[in-house]
Parts: sequence; structure tokens; C-alpha cells
Amino acid sequence: MNTRITIGRQFGSSGHEIGKKVAEKLGIPCYDKEIITATAKNSGFCEEMIENHDERPTSSFLYNLVMDTYSFGYNNSTYIDMPISQKVFLAQFNAIKDLADAGPCVIVGRCADYALQDRTDTLNIFIFGNEETKIKTIMNRFPELNEGKARDMMVKKDKQRQSYYNYYSSKKWGRADTYDLCINSSTLGVDGTVDLICQYVNDFENKKC
Amino acid sequence: MNTRITIGRQFGSSGHEIGKKVAEKLGIPCYDKEIITATAKNSGFCEEMIENHDERPTSSFLYNLVMDTYSFGYNNSTYIDMPISQKVFLAQFNAIKDLADAGPCVIVGRCADYALQDRTDTLNIFIFGNEETKIKTIMNRFPELNEGKARDMMVKKDKQRQSYYNYYSSKKWGRADTYDLCINSSTLGVDGTVDLICQYVNDFENKKC
Repeated sequence: MNTRITIGRQFGSSGHEIGKKVAEKLGIPCYDKEIITATAKNSGFCEEMIENHDERPTSSFLYNLVMDTYSFGYNNSTYIDMPISQKVFLAQFNAIKDLADAGPCVIVGRCADYALQDRTDTLNIFIFGNEETKIKTIMNRFPELNEGKARDMMVKKDKQRQSYYNYYSSKKWGRADTYDLCINSSTLGVDGTVDLICQYVNDFENKKC
Repeated sequence: MNTRITIGRQFGSSGHEIGKKVAEKLGIPCYDKEIITATAKNSGFCEEMIENHDERPTSSFLYNLVMDTYSFGYNNSTYIDMPISQKVFLAQFNAIKDLADAGPCVIVGRCADYALQDRTDTLNIFIFGNEETKIKTIMNRFPELNEGKARDMMVKKDKQRQSYYNYYSSKKWGRADTYDLCINSSTLGVDGTVDLICQYVNDFENKKC
């Protein structure tokens, strides 16, 4: 087992749960929010600041400038003229590369496919779902939301992820040919999707042998 | 075995070959160019005319009007005010529905997923590939083409397919969430991709049982 697996995902498509279960079945670590801690360790940024910029696009250049004015004292000379959001992105980008260097793993979100694009041992997967299923999943996770609010959250989060990905990477979020494999998790359900991905990883490993 | 499988595909991605091999392995028929003959039988259009409009978008409304003026005498009253390209599309649309009504099958291209969108026994698959692999495949098929010409043909054909699909269907060609499963055929190769699709169809059938 030598494959690195990146998972892009629509909000509510159970991409996080699928990533965790795939990693468990393959006996390798899964990094999602854990990337924030890894980035903090590597970069010197505090976790709160990284979380504030995590998979969120900046709304404008002006916002970046303002945030940069208020950034507190991170003055690595390489990064000095860069907006804070880009500094955080680069720190995450490097943390992801280090995690992949350390061994096979599953990495969820955060343009990980872009960070690992030079590796030939990586499979890039995108998980999406039917609107109805995704809204149910979101309402289970946030019981205080009604259907309308859950839909609003879904649309907003996907817009954020798409803007973030398209801004930093050279490909298009959610377009089939950005990835190796794209799966509608509503068709086979979470466990069926996990099984298919594991089968795919095994086929990929056997092909290389 | 009760599943209908539609395959959308990028030009040069071996979608046709993959469709044929999947159908063979599952013991069901595969329809690609055969849809033209089926449409001719059902509609009264001659095969040549259907082929002229096959997966090709009309370039303008004016073109449609001109073509309509020259269309020779097909005067079914339902269709009388419709541009010829749309009449051909509708005839193909109905032929695809009839083929799927007749039993499980693989249907390649021609907005088949849109024609069968009301069926719950259908899996919609999109096949794409790395540019380098697709160009090699195109040059093998058309040995008279050099690399540049093969690339030009690939870009043009994909533009045609995208325009045709986006014009007639309510979804976007090549976007992951238009389909159930999207596979880069360059990652596992033709036979590996065929195996994964057959596995997927089996999982889908077992889930429904």
C-alpha cells in the first residue's frame, strides 16, 4: 500500500465520513481538520488564524490588504509582501506535501490534489451527491436548521470551496476531468462508495506492480 | 441484470471501446452509432440526415431556419414548426427511450442520460482521459493526423459534444455532478476501467435487491 488519496467533496456529500472509512479500511491515516494542527506546527501561525482562512476565499484584494495590515508580526521575509490568506494557503500547501511525504494517507479538501500534482502515486477523488440526500445529511449534522437553511448553507459552502479551489489551483472544482474518479455518494450510499474507492485503490496498486 | 448504462465521453477517451467491452462482459447490447439506424426505423428520417445532425449543435437559429426551409417534406404536424436539428434530436431521444424500454443495455453519447432521466434503473457514467493518452488514441485511429491535428480534432469534437449536450439537456456536460460516476480512463487503462464499471454496476444491482 503506497497510494496517497485526495478527496474533494461537495458540502453534505459525506466526503469526510467516506475519507475516514476508506483510511480505516486501508489502514492509513486520514487528514481533514488535522491539517490545521499540522500547518500550525510547521508554520508558526496560530490554529485560530488558519481556521479563519481554512478553505475560504478572500472576498477581495482590498480585504486581503486590510487583513495584512492587521496580521500580527509573522514576518518571514519570503512571505512579507503576500496577503495573509495566501500565506496561510502556502503554509497548508507545504503541510500537505509533508504529510504525503511521510507515507500513504487520505487527505480531505484544501486543494490537496494540487499540492500533490507532481506525485505519480496519488489518486484524486471527488465526492458529490443528490441535493435531497445532501440536505438530509446537513440537517442530521445541524439539527437546528430547517430545510431552507440547510440548502442555503450547502450552496454557500460549495461556493466558498469552489472559489478557494479555482483561485489557488490551475483546475476547476467539480469538473470531472480535474480528478481521477468522481462518485455520487447518493447512488451506492456511504459504505458502497467506500467499498468502490477501496476497490479502485487496489486496482491502481496492482496495475503499478 | 436490469440496469441501463449511459456513457458520456470525451473524444479520444476510449468511451466507445469501454462501452462495448462493458456490454460484452455484462451480456447486454451496446448502442452507439446503432442509434442512428434505430432512429431512422422509428422516425422515417433517412440515416444520412440523422448522421449529419448526430451530436452536432446547430451553429445558429438562422442556420436552423435555412435547414428547415430545405428539409424535404417531413410534415408530421407535431414537428412542423421545429428546426430540422431539433426534430432529429427528438427522434433520437425517442429511439433511446424505446431501446431502454426493451431491456438492459449500454448507450453511448447522444444525451442518453437526459432521455432516461425518469428511470431509476439507470447509471450515468462519464469517461474522460489525460490529454497525452487521448491524442495517442486519436492518432492510432486516424494515422494520417499529426499531433497538432489530432489535438485540434479533439478540442473541436469535445466542443461539439458539449454544445449539443448543454443545449438539449438541463445539465452540464463534463461536470461531475451531472453523472453517477466519472472515470479517467488513462489512470487504470481501458480494461481496468471496464472492470471498475462492471464492479460498480454489480454493486448497484446488489444494493437494490
